[in-house]
Amino acid sequence: MINRDKDRRDELTAAEFRELFEAVSSWGRWGTDDERGALNYLTPARVLEAARLVRSGETVTLSLPLNTRLGIDNPAPVDHHMTMLGDEDIGSGTLRFAKDYVGADYHNPSHTHIDALCHVAFDGALYNGKPSASLTPEGATADAIGVLKDGLIGRGVLLDVPRLRGVPWLEPGEHIFPDQLESCEREQGVTVGEGDILLIRTGHARRHAELGAWDTDSAKAGLHPTCASFLAERRIAALGSDGNSDTTPSTTEGIDFPIHALTLNAMGVHLLDYLQFEDLVAACEREGRWEFLCLAAPLRVIGGTGSPVNPIAIL
Amino acid sequence: MINRDKDRRDELTAAEFRELFEAVSSWGRWGTDDERGALNYLTPARVLEAARLVRSGETVTLSLPLNTRLGIDNPAPVDHHMTMLGDEDIGSGTLRFAKDYVGADYHNPSHTHIDALCHVAFDGALYNGKPSASLTPEGATADAIGVLKDGLIGRGVLLDVPRLRGVPWLEPGEHIFPDQLESCEREQGVTVGEGDILLIRTGHARRHAELGAWDTDSAKAGLHPTCASFLAERRIAALGSDGNSDTTPSTTEGIDFPIHALTLNAMGVHLLDYLQFEDLVAACEREGRWEFLCLAAPLRVIGGTGSPVNPIAIL
Amino acid sequence: MINRDKDRRDELTAAEFRELFEAVSSWGRWGTDDERGALNYLTPARVLEAARLVRSGETVTLSLPLNTRLGIDNPAPVDHHMTMLGDEDIGSGTLRFAKDYVGADYHNPSHTHIDALCHVAFDGALYNGKPSASLTPEGATADAIGVLKDGLIGRGVLLDVPRLRGVPWLEPGEHIFPDQLESCEREQGVTVGEGDILLIRTGHARRHAELGAWDTDSAKAGLHPTCASFLAERRIAALGSDGNSDTTPSTTEGIDFPIHALTLNAMGVHLLDYLQFEDLVAACEREGRWEFLCLAAPLRVIGGTGSPVNPIAIL
Amino acid sequence: MINRDKDRRDELTAAEFRELFEAVSSWGRWGTDDERGALNYLTPARVLEAARLVRSGETVTLSLPLNTRLGIDNPAPVDHHMTMLGDEDIGSGTLRFAKDYVGADYHNPSHTHIDALCHVAFDGALYNGKPSASLTPEGATADAIGVLKDGLIGRGVLLDVPRLRGVPWLEPGEHIFPDQLESCEREQGVTVGEGDILLIRTGHARRHAELGAWDTDSAKAGLHPTCASFLAERRIAALGSDGNSDTTPSTTEGIDFPIHALTLNAMGVHLLDYLQFEDLVAACEREGRWEFLCLAAPLRVIGGTGSPVNPIAIL
Repeated sequence: MINRDKDRRDELTAAEFRELFEAVSSWGRWGTDDERGALNYLTPARVLEAARLVRSGETVTLSLPLNTRLGIDNPAPVDHHMTMLGDEDIGSGTLRFAKDYVGADYHNPSHTHIDALCHVAFDGALYNGKPSASLTPEGATADAIGVLKDGLIGRGVLLDVPRLRGVPWLEPGEHIFPDQLESCEREQGVTVGEGDILLIRTGHARRHAELGAWDTDSAKAGLHPTCASFLAERRIAALGSDGNSDTTPSTTEGIDFPIHALTLNAMGVHLLDYLQFEDLVAACEREGRWEFLCLAAPLRVIGGTGSPVNPIAIL
Repeated sequence: MINRDKDRRDELTAAEFRELFEAVSSWGRWGTDDERGALNYLTPARVLEAARLVRSGETVTLSLPLNTRLGIDNPAPVDHHMTMLGDEDIGSGTLRFAKDYVGADYHNPSHTHIDALCHVAFDGALYNGKPSASLTPEGATADAIGVLKDGLIGRGVLLDVPRLRGVPWLEPGEHIFPDQLESCEREQGVTVGEGDILLIRTGHARRHAELGAWDTDSAKAGLHPTCASFLAERRIAALGSDGNSDTTPSTTEGIDFPIHALTLNAMGVHLLDYLQFEDLVAACEREGRWEFLCLAAPLRVIGGTGSPVNPIAIL
Repeated sequence: MINRDKDRRDELTAAEFRELFEAVSSWGRWGTDDERGALNYLTPARVLEAARLVRSGETVTLSLPLNTRLGIDNPAPVDHHMTMLGDEDIGSGTLRFAKDYVGADYHNPSHTHIDALCHVAFDGALYNGKPSASLTPEGATADAIGVLKDGLIGRGVLLDVPRLRGVPWLEPGEHIFPDQLESCEREQGVTVGEGDILLIRTGHARRHAELGAWDTDSAKAGLHPTCASFLAERRIAALGSDGNSDTTPSTTEGIDFPIHALTLNAMGVHLLDYLQFEDLVAACEREGRWEFLCLAAPLRVIGGTGSPVNPIAIL
Repeated sequence: MINRDKDRRDELTAAEFRELFEAVSSWGRWGTDDERGALNYLTPARVLEAARLVRSGETVTLSLPLNTRLGIDNPAPVDHHMTMLGDEDIGSGTLRFAKDYVGADYHNPSHTHIDALCHVAFDGALYNGKPSASLTPEGATADAIGVLKDGLIGRGVLLDVPRLRGVPWLEPGEHIFPDQLESCEREQGVTVGEGDILLIRTGHARRHAELGAWDTDSAKAGLHPTCASFLAERRIAALGSDGNSDTTPSTTEGIDFPIHALTLNAMGVHLLDYLQFEDLVAACEREGRWEFLCLAAPLRVIGGTGSPVNPIAIL
């Protein structure tokens, strides 16, 4: 096992990565047919507990507005165009309708979305050993977004790493290490537990708002792969971030997205990518607590590798 | 005022419709700039009350699966195609990704969706008197879906009209009258109140499942326009149905979608269209109650006339 | 046989229409398996003859610009958006690329396009008796646009009806009768013959340019159904117009698009819809002749019902 | 000047590339406002000469079928789906329609297309010194595909390099050198001249048909950059290939697509990419000649960086 407290060493060798992968793997834990992964931790009883966290009834979006403009961090803008406008002259008593089309290649840095477990294959297999041939031109036949048809609903916990460090945001390329997550817990007075939807703030969206877009494919703050042990020990149900949870560039030998592999593939943990936490931070500060009822309701895409979503926190 | 108890007369004259429109109108009630309409009834305090309804933690989707197949009731199938598959031969230690595109002209009878208030113009105006010129080729500049960026979350109440009548579904073309809604309340032991998300079941989805698709543009069960008085008196926040709430063909003189005009336009009530209640009915029967925490989180489409959604009930 | 010279009677009964359909039908003429229809008239020898018509080498587009703006005559705007822009700062010696997406639901009044024979079914059958079940959600398995993979290339002949009448355009709803086509021939000194691509000008595009858009689904000038006899006798290979060849509203009992049925379905004549002839008219006037090498090269859509095209005249 | 006969040295230094760029540049040749580039060589007189090459009237497509299947050489499949099918039961005398949508991010290795001059920027400028800021999210405001609204029509000449070498195809990564183009001319009895549409066969499509898809982003046969001198001296109007004219990987220092830069950017020569020549080779062999009337008619995309096309040869 990697000693995550020791040194915050950036680099991870291929062998160390593989050791970590095996250590955190949930394959087989819920049977060989399981496609829900860590969602198994999120029982109805925990949904009920999460609902009891509501105190003010305030609701807060965690989604960015859909971005329709091509840019350095938006290689695939959202398609949005009116499909009915009814702009003819109309007389009294007339009804007319406006309609629009919305579409997205949503796995992209400008769109808030959820990754299904089938979003990533490692060594030719999806989560729980499903063959990567389950990925077909017509969609995924295993580990697809359909396991979340009834929504991802549970206790949300926000760990705010820039707040801990007293900075507005982490700089692109910076790693978050597991001891920092524990420091956030102590500082914020909250403990991540079984079945939680863990949200980790890097300040990505605030940096974007203040400094403008940058090439997130080149540099982005995120979790160091050793955080996977923390996530596995706490038995979280899902993970979200204002980035995509991974640090870019990767410092893991031969693996560009180690956290994607360790969560989606090894642990069966769904990822919420490119959330915005600015409204939520303000509400949490006001309420003096960092836990809340959290929900995301993916579209029911048959065979989908995820979905655009508008996750909501209810305080 | 129309006596809704008297006779269940199908036909409504243009004059009667206009009288009804005026009677239920909320224009000006929350100021001349208001774009939230009946969402104003759904205060944080009511969200909190709704959260307290959760008892089992069971969650249930109210959405149909996205339908990608052209058909008589699906003139605009959902676009869904893989955009990355990575089907090359890969060696050990390799990570690869699958991505997909999803898009929809979602205001259509095969797609579960929400209508923004700007979806319909009447007499050249949107809800609260916004000019219909607010509908531009780039999107709506008033009454758009953005008012729901923090989600539609509140108490859901399901009234099951076929259950009341002892039939599996209402036949296409049948009207629901206001006294039947009251009978449902009595029969089911629930009373619709201020700020509720009212869901009315016609059995549309079950009929579809058992008999197959039909031309819903020609015939569909829904609410008689006189139900608008009931909705206005109860001060509901939003209305949903397994159809689109309107009866087809319309029996209102000169108006094809009277309920759309009366809710979206006059009352400022958002509509959830083409929900499926089959899973929810089973859960409600099991729990012996017809109220629950209900949520829908529209995508953050700037200027959008609505959104595809996956609404969820939490019991 | 209907006497087309007699009376220019607008109305056609259902029985007269069916009689006309039978009279002009080419079903079986080139075998029971034929899917090329009147393209059989357009032999290589005729292509060679058409190429010899070139005298000046001037080329002229017959296409409208692609229209991306929703409007009363454009219910399905062309999708066009950049997919790569490379707008980052770049140093000396750097290469970067711009790319775009273009897509269309092209069978619409604002888009120049060609109709494949499978675009229309009549009495449950496509051209030459192919079953309408050949139309599947994956595309057409018979009479599809693939028969034109090597292009539609031949002698083009333009008959200019407004010029004959001394008006700038025909008013929406006006019929062109067969004797007027013959008058155009005499006036312009050209005779339509076997294998020709016949182009008929109504002035639609000029009216649009001068008066603005109108609801072409309500009113549009075109050919009276009795013109089908003229087309069949002359053995044209294809037909084009600045409208869609049909008059709207139809005056044929029970049939909204009689010319579509008579050409695509009965005769196997492909249609070029919503061409613009303004540049061509100027060139023809200058050259003093109304025949030229004409070409259209549909995209190779497998199972397609047509294609957007940019047809060209070479004088 | 680089001596192209000397050594067939693969590598080109950045300085040699820049020298070559300057040597072949046409900037300013047709005025500072010119956006047509080498199309200026293709005068109406040359179109007329090209039309006189037609002898048999046989027409042959140079386009691949549109490819809707995601694959290693097809990262952006063509969108094709039916938008109207009319699959209801219909009675006698009924007409119904089938329609489809077709769309493409067409600058991709599986789609036959044309590159507009604005497709590539070098050192911050488009062809003829237009600023790269002409590339906007709404489209290109200079050097766009609109200069070809009246079609690309002229003499086509096919040089078949695998035929010269006695091989079925060039292997991925192989360069074609200018002396080989001259050898092709001698062998095939044809001389490339001013205003020609020059087509160069590498056997790409045949290799694909026989061996299946491969990763063309990694390896592909094409022209060595020194061929640009040949192209400039012969004053061709446009260049086409069954690949994209460039060799991959590039052996030019710091420039991935040297031929794109030298043709589109320096010379103002439009490129036809991913043609298929298999049908054309058979026809040319049969006719014993390698010149023909050649045409491509891009869609009229306003501000477009190119277009999907179906180019045709007429023999």
